[in-house]
Amino acid sequence: MPRPRKERLRLRRVAIDTYRENVAYLHRDCAIYRAEGFQALSKIEISNRSHRILAVLNVVDDVSLVGPGELGLSEQAFDQFGQPPGAAVEVAHAEPPASMEAVRRKMAGQRLAKEDFAAIAQDIADHRYSKTEMAAFLVATGQTGLDRDEILHLTRAMFATGERLAWDEPLVADKHCIGGIPGNRTSMLVVPIVAAHGMLIPKTSSRAITSPAGTADTMEVLARVELDPATMHRIVRRHRGCLAWGGTAHLAPVDDILISVERPLGIDSQGQMVASILSKKLAAGSTHLLIDIPVGSSAKVRRMGDALALRKLFEFVGDRLGLHLEVVITDGRQPVGRGIGPVLEARDVMQVLENDPAAPEDLRQKALHLAGRIIEFDPDVRGGSGFSIARDILESGRALARMNELIEAQGRRPDPPRPGRLHFEVHAPRAGVVTAIDNYRLARIARMAGAPMGPGAGVDLLRKMGDAVEVGTPLYRVHAEVRAEFEFARRLCEQDDGYRIGDSAVTEEGFLTEF
Amino acid sequence: MPRPRKERLRLRRVAIDTYRENVAYLHRDCAIYRAEGFQALSKIEISNRSHRILAVLNVVDDVSLVGPGELGLSEQAFDQFGQPPGAAVEVAHAEPPASMEAVRRKMAGQRLAKEDFAAIAQDIADHRYSKTEMAAFLVATGQTGLDRDEILHLTRAMFATGERLAWDEPLVADKHCIGGIPGNRTSMLVVPIVAAHGMLIPKTSSRAITSPAGTADTMEVLARVELDPATMHRIVRRHRGCLAWGGTAHLAPVDDILISVERPLGIDSQGQMVASILSKKLAAGSTHLLIDIPVGSSAKVRRMGDALALRKLFEFVGDRLGLHLEVVITDGRQPVGRGIGPVLEARDVMQVLENDPAAPEDLRQKALHLAGRIIEFDPDVRGGSGFSIARDILESGRALARMNELIEAQGRRPDPPRPGRLHFEVHAPRAGVVTAIDNYRLARIARMAGAPMGPGAGVDLLRKMGDAVEVGTPLYRVHAEVRAEFEFARRLCEQDDGYRIGDSAVTEEGFLTEF
Repeated sequence: MPRPRKERLRLRRVAIDTYRENVAYLHRDCAIYRAEGFQALSKIEISNRSHRILAVLNVVDDVSLVGPGELGLSEQAFDQFGQPPGAAVEVAHAEPPASMEAVRRKMAGQRLAKEDFAAIAQDIADHRYSKTEMAAFLVATGQTGLDRDEILHLTRAMFATGERLAWDEPLVADKHCIGGIPGNRTSMLVVPIVAAHGMLIPKTSSRAITSPAGTADTMEVLARVELDPATMHRIVRRHRGCLAWGGTAHLAPVDDILISVERPLGIDSQGQMVASILSKKLAAGSTHLLIDIPVGSSAKVRRMGDALALRKLFEFVGDRLGLHLEVVITDGRQPVGRGIGPVLEARDVMQVLENDPAAPEDLRQKALHLAGRIIEFDPDVRGGSGFSIARDILESGRALARMNELIEAQGRRPDPPRPGRLHFEVHAPRAGVVTAIDNYRLARIARMAGAPMGPGAGVDLLRKMGDAVEVGTPLYRVHAEVRAEFEFARRLCEQDDGYRIGDSAVTEEGFLTEF
Repeated sequence: MPRPRKERLRLRRVAIDTYRENVAYLHRDCAIYRAEGFQALSKIEISNRSHRILAVLNVVDDVSLVGPGELGLSEQAFDQFGQPPGAAVEVAHAEPPASMEAVRRKMAGQRLAKEDFAAIAQDIADHRYSKTEMAAFLVATGQTGLDRDEILHLTRAMFATGERLAWDEPLVADKHCIGGIPGNRTSMLVVPIVAAHGMLIPKTSSRAITSPAGTADTMEVLARVELDPATMHRIVRRHRGCLAWGGTAHLAPVDDILISVERPLGIDSQGQMVASILSKKLAAGSTHLLIDIPVGSSAKVRRMGDALALRKLFEFVGDRLGLHLEVVITDGRQPVGRGIGPVLEARDVMQVLENDPAAPEDLRQKALHLAGRIIEFDPDVRGGSGFSIARDILESGRALARMNELIEAQGRRPDPPRPGRLHFEVHAPRAGVVTAIDNYRLARIARMAGAPMGPGAGVDLLRKMGDAVEVGTPLYRVHAEVRAEFEFARRLCEQDDGYRIGDSAVTEEGFLTEF
């Protein structure tokens, strides 16, 4: 229940960007601030007759920023409130969101109902949760905190609070990899192949957050990826696909909000991952979805048994949400392809599309495998024949042609960036066979070298698992655009280059037998 | 590992109060901001040769706030960094605190070691934890998340990261109530009685956060409570006690930091409560501590069994930390005394000290009981005789005299506030006997009426449990200082006045038998 409101303040925009956290600024001598007993960092509600917003309070001691009769809002909060400067607003203590009661029950180990998840998602979508309240929700529902029915409820609730893209077609295909494998840029091959087959595949991707390149970063080396909804629809109608950045559409906004808290905390529970992926895909209007779960000792999923359990969870939730969903478990023991970083990965992709003999064979095979499975979603395609259809599309040059259409339609980049001009090679310290390549370490080296902010920065792998090496054989080349990053990546490689060289080709024994 | 540092910025103080969260301001055109790929709300490290601080980043679009070559710090962050305006500073991505790895293990349900708690407390004390990271820690360790050995480790770690007051005496007495009972102002009686007996009792108290009055708020009606350390020591040496606000000393700072996240989340686990109370008391230099656990259906602890479990937990941790600790379980079925709110509670306290026949007998009895138990910490006092010693001190006027000494020493308030001049009475809707008074509801009414910010606001109880009433008998009087708050409290009373009237005096049956 809000406290009584007494006075009005004049609205003012404060030119400070506080990202996903709304911040309000009150002068310390503001009568309302004094009367209400607000405290800096407390949550307040700002309203007028028609609009309402919640914000965290910062107290100001400089009248040039806000005066005692004014209420300042940070840029995003001001936009969200949507009222002009000078508008009269009221301020009150914000009560904690009602659904926090359910979060407290979850903290106490109780099972939550469908309605609880709906209320939580709605409160988060309405920006009623503070970052700490979201962290409490995420920790309480993390790890083994949710059973599979609860994950279903959460997915549905996250999907229901956002918009949904409408494609008005019975089959809208999509693919998603749970991540963790550098160089794994299969979407840029799967989309042109599947679109060339005639299936609708409007792919939206993210930018890298913790990895050296996301699909959006890599596609951006070649073309514009920030498409407004109308442009995206036009391209998809005409070319049966696109490779766009997903950040412009407001799909499953609760997912974006939660991720902004989840990532810095390093929370990565299976239940939340499933809810995040499936709510986003449903919101994107997908009807048929292929999920890629790479397994390997330095992948996100380390054991086959865990991958199978995760597959069943995806299937359970997907089925109940009316999504045709299939899961493939793939080899995640080392990076895919050669390049790691936007420019180098784009080069790999184009080599595969151009049927260049130098193209990395593992990336080509994996993309054909995934595209083939998606093509088999087509009711007219016989089970088992997807791979050869995909291969025909690729080898005939139709995939390349479709990719060039998409690039032109999205807007070809006139000055594509090139590999970073500073580079060094890392050499084998002994003779033998490459027995392991640490995904995590190579991703870290590529990031330290400047990827993805520096698109030409990254790592180019010259040897992969199973390759024989002599002392001094180059294992990989690191590219950087900036001297300091070059030096820093070099130091990182000296500490641990991420490669293991052994005496024989028997690598990660007992694991190989599972593929 | 920080990324390489390239350029320096000039330090600037930004006149914004962000309380316990350090905020740094960078202009959007700042070269370092662009090169490093910072994002608003990411955590950055600001340093020069000798100083280092962590802060959350806000991005500024107004050069009058910070220019592209400057780094702004919010007021507390600037003070903490301790360097002059214009000083050259470097900025880098802040790595997550190393001890978050232990928090993630706790989220996964594992038991943490002593060293883990030490590392977590040190990182929190060093401001390396964001609010969300603290929320993650609190939720993961809340409820049944900690066993008693872990609670011991946490208490020790929280105590070890702060300063400790040194009194250089073998017996430093203290008391603490776990809270939740309005009007329970016993400290202001216990301190003068125990000090008059000659025992050292340097009491520091908090201000109200969620309640209508804290001991510091109530004492402030009579005297100054914000004492610098030297003044407090001088008063304690001379008068054997004090009634000061604890916020000025830097005792168990980790506790203050965690509480600022815990309260808004409504997290209230027994383990964290024990660690919070005992780390603060150890830091205050206490050697002998009496803990008051009120039990009642609207108290924090609702069942006698829970109170006994909590008592054992206090004893386990206290014993291992070398604290002489005793726990009393008291009647928490209704508010103590008559007044709720600073001015009304101060009046009750002074009536008891003045041996006024109108003084509330329950407050008097409870204070004598607690003071008696503390007096029995004195090795020269025979077991069981504490109560009568306390009563003698009170009845002889020595307690009043000591209280007046403390008030004069701390600084008597020249213009003590009076009960709010706006008031209304709430009447019995039927004849019968008062069978229950809801602590939570009465506290809420008093807060809505304006307490503690309005010191004269609050509730004055005219009937207590067991009292017979007719239709229309006044149950309590609500005081307010502001018209809007008066109206709001009245509406709250109309919804539910917090009193239950029954046919007989048998109240909360089965509970009474336990006292």
